[in-house]
Amino acid sequence: MQARMEAALARLLPKPQHAPPRLHEAMRYAALEGGKRVRPMLAFAAGELVDADARRLEIAAAAVELVHAYSLVHDDLPCMDDDVLRRGKPTVHVEFDEATALLVGDALQALAFQLLAEHTLAADPAQQLEMIRTLALAAGSRGMAGGQMIDLESTGRQLSPPELEFMHIRKTGALIRAAVVLGAGCGAPLAAEDRARVDHYAKCVGLAFQVVDDVLDAEASTATLGKTAGKDSKQGKPTYAAALGVARARAFAEELRGQAHEALARFGARGRRLRQLADFIVLRKF
Amino acid sequence: MQARMEAALARLLPKPQHAPPRLHEAMRYAALEGGKRVRPMLAFAAGELVDADARRLEIAAAAVELVHAYSLVHDDLPCMDDDVLRRGKPTVHVEFDEATALLVGDALQALAFQLLAEHTLAADPAQQLEMIRTLALAAGSRGMAGGQMIDLESTGRQLSPPELEFMHIRKTGALIRAAVVLGAGCGAPLAAEDRARVDHYAKCVGLAFQVVDDVLDAEASTATLGKTAGKDSKQGKPTYAAALGVARARAFAEELRGQAHEALARFGARGRRLRQLADFIVLRKF
Repeated sequence: MQARMEAALARLLPKPQHAPPRLHEAMRYAALEGGKRVRPMLAFAAGELVDADARRLEIAAAAVELVHAYSLVHDDLPCMDDDVLRRGKPTVHVEFDEATALLVGDALQALAFQLLAEHTLAADPAQQLEMIRTLALAAGSRGMAGGQMIDLESTGRQLSPPELEFMHIRKTGALIRAAVVLGAGCGAPLAAEDRARVDHYAKCVGLAFQVVDDVLDAEASTATLGKTAGKDSKQGKPTYAAALGVARARAFAEELRGQAHEALARFGARGRRLRQLADFIVLRKF
Repeated sequence: MQARMEAALARLLPKPQHAPPRLHEAMRYAALEGGKRVRPMLAFAAGELVDADARRLEIAAAAVELVHAYSLVHDDLPCMDDDVLRRGKPTVHVEFDEATALLVGDALQALAFQLLAEHTLAADPAQQLEMIRTLALAAGSRGMAGGQMIDLESTGRQLSPPELEFMHIRKTGALIRAAVVLGAGCGAPLAAEDRARVDHYAKCVGLAFQVVDDVLDAEASTATLGKTAGKDSKQGKPTYAAALGVARARAFAEELRGQAHEALARFGARGRRLRQLADFIVLRKF
């Protein structure tokens, strides 16, 4: 899947020969050769629930991953987290410059919506419009961008577990949920009850992802993570590790993993990869 | 139209009571009470070509205007034009802060695509997908963001008129063209030839808009413009006024106005408002 995703992104991103070359080069730098590709993996796994076509899933997964990539570029800027290292490489504004990094993020977001609009992803174009709406809501002020804002405003004070959940459901959870929903959207429509089950699974893994991130950030070294470790607590950002302690945070992630499995019980073998991903997200060491 | 647009944007932007309040307040600050609303006017006028429903036009116009508003917020940031004044008010990063301004732009772009996906704008959802694609292309690396990049890279050297045109067709022209195309998309589909005519009109007014902007910037005072005047030449940015001289730049704008009128001749009375707007864009004093 990783290799397939990499090839798809390389094909879908504008070539560096096209004007303006420096912007296209920087967009590719930001989006290629990077990360665990958790969101694309979730989109593909959700596609298995509905026997979705792999070429459609590539597009849906790429769109979600481009939104994720743009958010990292903007998040690393000096006015945000001011980070110089990402995935073991200099961040975009370090490798290029700040203005380019700003435009890279802006253009990656536009490209995500372009992809969802210009390829056929569902038999019914109305279903495809609904997928675009899902991604836009997940990215916007009541999703990821809103979560970033709450994160910024929380720096320096510890949040209660419900406040942390409110933030993370937006900051990380919304886009992870969109990955699952868009993957499932590439096949035949699910019945409302099944949609709700998939949605519950997605909320659980989205939140678990952040809880585990906090735990790993509290524990790990920079070398393993490929990004500056321990930075959240150094920057005074509220984390689950700080709110609950590492042991209880791990137990919470474990509980979410159980709920995610349960939500998929009804899908049998078709839900196997999504269940494996819930395990991977909670049990990963990096 | 202005009042109608203002009311529509006020309704469509998230309320400041919703979390996160500061982000929503800043989004409203960036998008409300501002500007000439040229792009919405063009969308509404293009809607008259096809008897488009006014409620649909509001959505299409709002989406284009939100992309425009986001681009201004990012453009004003210290790493870009570093501007403190916009539409007679402090820019978003001055009134709020840089991180908020970054997120405001990101969230306004997402909201634009959300609006286009969640309201019914065309009888055929496939036509609506095509409208989303048009806006995404206009905003992205081969449209507005690409034009900004070329602009950044051109600072300090004068471009030839063809190079200027290449830049401005992207930087300003693409979104102006999208306004016209989306407005026309809200009605019954046009025949291919008529679509090409409307497209030619849109390209002409998009380019004319920038030529006139350059001339006004070279001539006007800060008080009239409501933004820092003469800044383009001070920042060493290439302009039509510098490339052609003010008199020839004005003549070029006049030629584009003529072409725009001609492109619409075949539409008779239905093209009246678009023709008036071409006049307004070229003859305006601010």
